Amino acid sequence: MKETIAEGSDVLLYLNRKRTYLVKVERGKSFHTHKGFIQLDSLIDKPYGTRTSSNLGVEFTALKPTIRDHIFKTLRKTQITYPKDIALIVMYSGIGPGSQVVEAGTGTGALTTALAHYVKPTGRVHSYEIRPEFTATAQKNLKRAGVADYVELKNKDITLGIDETDTDAVILDLATPWLVIPHAYRALKGSGTLVSFSPTIDQTVKTVEALEQNGFVDTETIECLMRRMQIERGKTRPETLMTGHTGYLTFARKALGE
Amino acid sequence: MKETIAEGSDVLLYLNRKRTYLVKVERGKSFHTHKGFIQLDSLIDKPYGTRTSSNLGVEFTALKPTIRDHIFKTLRKTQITYPKDIALIVMYSGIGPGSQVVEAGTGTGALTTALAHYVKPTGRVHSYEIRPEFTATAQKNLKRAGVADYVELKNKDITLGIDETDTDAVILDLATPWLVIPHAYRALKGSGTLVSFSPTIDQTVKTVEALEQNGFVDTETIECLMRRMQIERGKTRPETLMTGHTGYLTFARKALGE
Amino acid sequence: MKETIAEGSDVLLYLNRKRTYLVKVERGKSFHTHKGFIQLDSLIDKPYGTRTSSNLGVEFTALKPTIRDHIFKTLRKTQITYPKDIALIVMYSGIGPGSQVVEAGTGTGALTTALAHYVKPTGRVHSYEIRPEFTATAQKNLKRAGVADYVELKNKDITLGIDETDTDAVILDLATPWLVIPHAYRALKGSGTLVSFSPTIDQTVKTVEALEQNGFVDTETIECLMRRMQIERGKTRPETLMTGHTGYLTFARKALGE
Amino acid sequence: MKETIAEGSDVLLYLNRKRTYLVKVERGKSFHTHKGFIQLDSLIDKPYGTRTSSNLGVEFTALKPTIRDHIFKTLRKTQITYPKDIALIVMYSGIGPGSQVVEAGTGTGALTTALAHYVKPTGRVHSYEIRPEFTATAQKNLKRAGVADYVELKNKDITLGIDETDTDAVILDLATPWLVIPHAYRALKGSGTLVSFSPTIDQTVKTVEALEQNGFVDTETIECLMRRMQIERGKTRPETLMTGHTGYLTFARKALGE
Repeated sequence: MKETIAEGSDVLLYLNRKRTYLVKVERGKSFHTHKGFIQLDSLIDKPYGTRTSSNLGVEFTALKPTIRDHIFKTLRKTQITYPKDIALIVMYSGIGPGSQVVEAGTGTGALTTALAHYVKPTGRVHSYEIRPEFTATAQKNLKRAGVADYVELKNKDITLGIDETDTDAVILDLATPWLVIPHAYRALKGSGTLVSFSPTIDQTVKTVEALEQNGFVDTETIECLMRRMQIERGKTRPETLMTGHTGYLTFARKALGE
Repeated sequence: MKETIAEGSDVLLYLNRKRTYLVKVERGKSFHTHKGFIQLDSLIDKPYGTRTSSNLGVEFTALKPTIRDHIFKTLRKTQITYPKDIALIVMYSGIGPGSQVVEAGTGTGALTTALAHYVKPTGRVHSYEIRPEFTATAQKNLKRAGVADYVELKNKDITLGIDETDTDAVILDLATPWLVIPHAYRALKGSGTLVSFSPTIDQTVKTVEALEQNGFVDTETIECLMRRMQIERGKTRPETLMTGHTGYLTFARKALGE
Repeated sequence: MKETIAEGSDVLLYLNRKRTYLVKVERGKSFHTHKGFIQLDSLIDKPYGTRTSSNLGVEFTALKPTIRDHIFKTLRKTQITYPKDIALIVMYSGIGPGSQVVEAGTGTGALTTALAHYVKPTGRVHSYEIRPEFTATAQKNLKRAGVADYVELKNKDITLGIDETDTDAVILDLATPWLVIPHAYRALKGSGTLVSFSPTIDQTVKTVEALEQNGFVDTETIECLMRRMQIERGKTRPETLMTGHTGYLTFARKALGE
Repeated sequence: MKETIAEGSDVLLYLNRKRTYLVKVERGKSFHTHKGFIQLDSLIDKPYGTRTSSNLGVEFTALKPTIRDHIFKTLRKTQITYPKDIALIVMYSGIGPGSQVVEAGTGTGALTTALAHYVKPTGRVHSYEIRPEFTATAQKNLKRAGVADYVELKNKDITLGIDETDTDAVILDLATPWLVIPHAYRALKGSGTLVSFSPTIDQTVKTVEALEQNGFVDTETIECLMRRMQIERGKTRPETLMTGHTGYLTFARKALGE
């Protein structure tokens, strides 16, 4: 049975690799772009993947938004936790369906969305954020991505303590991760994973020192560089522009006793 | 309630970042390393994360194997689908709990293990492998990682066709991915994701051309470089040795009609 | 004896790392920037390195232009032979004072300037360029950099042949280097060096094949990635933006006989 | 007139990219390799680039050693100032024929060899080294590379002071560059260039701070990653192994007054 586009659901209108639009399909509405407008009515009950044309004859494809698309759309321009880092955080943290995860800070919810996607349906993400203005945005983004039920948003300062215990992973993307390490130790199960993302070397050094002083083992720090390729017979080459740095990722595991 | 180490289960004995051992905890057995032996009896019913000493007084930590640990242990020396690539494949493919995934080739099952972990409990991985000698190894590795129930191993040549239809993703790590693209198109749902991993530029060019000729859109090729950091106050620096290349990752989405 | 700024000579007015101006010091003239204007009179007979202020009180430093500064100022925005590649070309080519070098294409003369600087005073650069509109620009740039006497600019198509023989190095930065390889072989001394810079993989493959079919040995291709660091206690990190690709550099040596 | 191999001169015997031998051509001697031996007599008066065969019929090419070959042969396994860094140091320092350069530490003379090559015949390199055991080795290497006449080797601790004044560049590759910065300021001409190479972030931060406190401007720090490519139609790809880090390069210019 083909999965079709329901009224009220989201589609990702794909024009080209640099232009995609996350759009809610509503009856009687149209969506305007610099390449003309698209009658959204015409997409209802069509299968995902359908090609459609704007009134100017330009072709768009109505894709089903994946978790990756939701994450990309949730990122702000200034936000540096890029998808490649999110991918590494998820896999190196060892989480999966059923995991209990603590996260801080929530921000606009990009990393939260990814974590919730992979722990659902039986796991939970407990996400701390000190700045109340972000909570509404994150809630909206999580809802749109279909993962709000698996997240508890907490408007609390995680440097003052973590409510949860026996968790599988604590994941930190905030300015002073080293202040959270002692709390993270108490919040984790034995053998649980800590992950910290920091743009600067100085934050990373302080975090690694805190990990070593607080009973963690298997500490490792990496950075990841991603480069896009232009693939075309006779013209194949890496792209000229590249993001040279997002941040350093640090991983560690909780050991018991001493 | 603390999770404890059961008789017959696996632990990851951690000595240092370069020496970890995946060991089955059996009564009356001991595990021998160049740093002495460990009585496995003593770990039974202890919580994961317990520190223990070898008879030579060297400390090990008994960690609970995560999916990442299973993937690492499943990789052969000569195998180039490194964990960073697996992490990107998983996230960029958009799969999650419940997804139907086709994969080829199985090899020793490292990528299969990751895919199965993220689609469980309701999803399935249908994994094709032409070389029968790999099937037994892969089956053993999947079982040890606890994900064998979510995988169908198929000793078939995927370049001749794909049995499944309406799948969410087709993931290729084999020598001639371009031969599989027409089959992959038929096996995917509209908007479904194709991912291909290839070490050489030439394979990548042929694959991208096949994608463009077979109704795929949103084609993108990336490469990812990972560098380890030595973090130590006064001595912080990237590590000298680095893997300079594993392969290129190509992603695309199935569009319908033309 | 201090070296001082003579009337009619160039200075590099340094405001910050992103704003430097190559300016001719003329009596009675001033130089205007968005940070005010500078009376050039005031610099005459001052030593290089002198700090001066604009009429708005903003400090500039009057540096002596080095060969590197001339190269940077000679580059066009669209030109991809970046300084790091020029540095590698110079050293890997093995040239030095006294070398005889063939180069194509001249372009605006950035690489020509570097080559001339290192072969002077007794060596020569014979630089081929098919597009006459570039010759005047290159000539002006070489003159300003003080190396015009060591360069012979030739408005000729190097794919049709090379006039020189017994040269030490042939250096190619043009669209079809493989067409020049047989000519380069004849133009080089035994053991002489060929260097080719190409943005695409396809150009590089064709060039390497031509080298192997035309009596060259020790063929090697590299690429070089350069990343700027932001160094500041507590905020140290790589810069976010980076040039991800300029081109591939191929090196080879002429062997005699077969 | 062809340049021929004189008795008593060096040739670089090239077997393949990983096997080259710097050999003195002496009458009546032979050179032994794992691919058989070569009668050196037979090379005398032949032109450079001549192909020759070992007694086992394996082909070697007798290349003329370039400055790059001498630098490579001078490097120790443990030495981290790789050729790419030397190339950048030379070009970014702005030196050329006639320059006066101060360098520390000499080590085995790899960087010294490069600097001397580019400042000859009228310039000089004043090279400081505190460890006397290196002086003899460096002297031997400089002689073999033909640049000993352009170098003054000084067995002195540069952190205690620099004898020279009005120099064009000061180039530091030692453990505590920040201790040398005030001396370097006095040793340089106005507008002269300082270059420092350090493996760690911590050394780099201290050096940049010292530069900013001692009257330098235009401070910039970079790192350079070099990757080899395997170029072969149908199998083109970057090489698997790569040096991930050698060190950070810092550049600055001396400004006068304040």
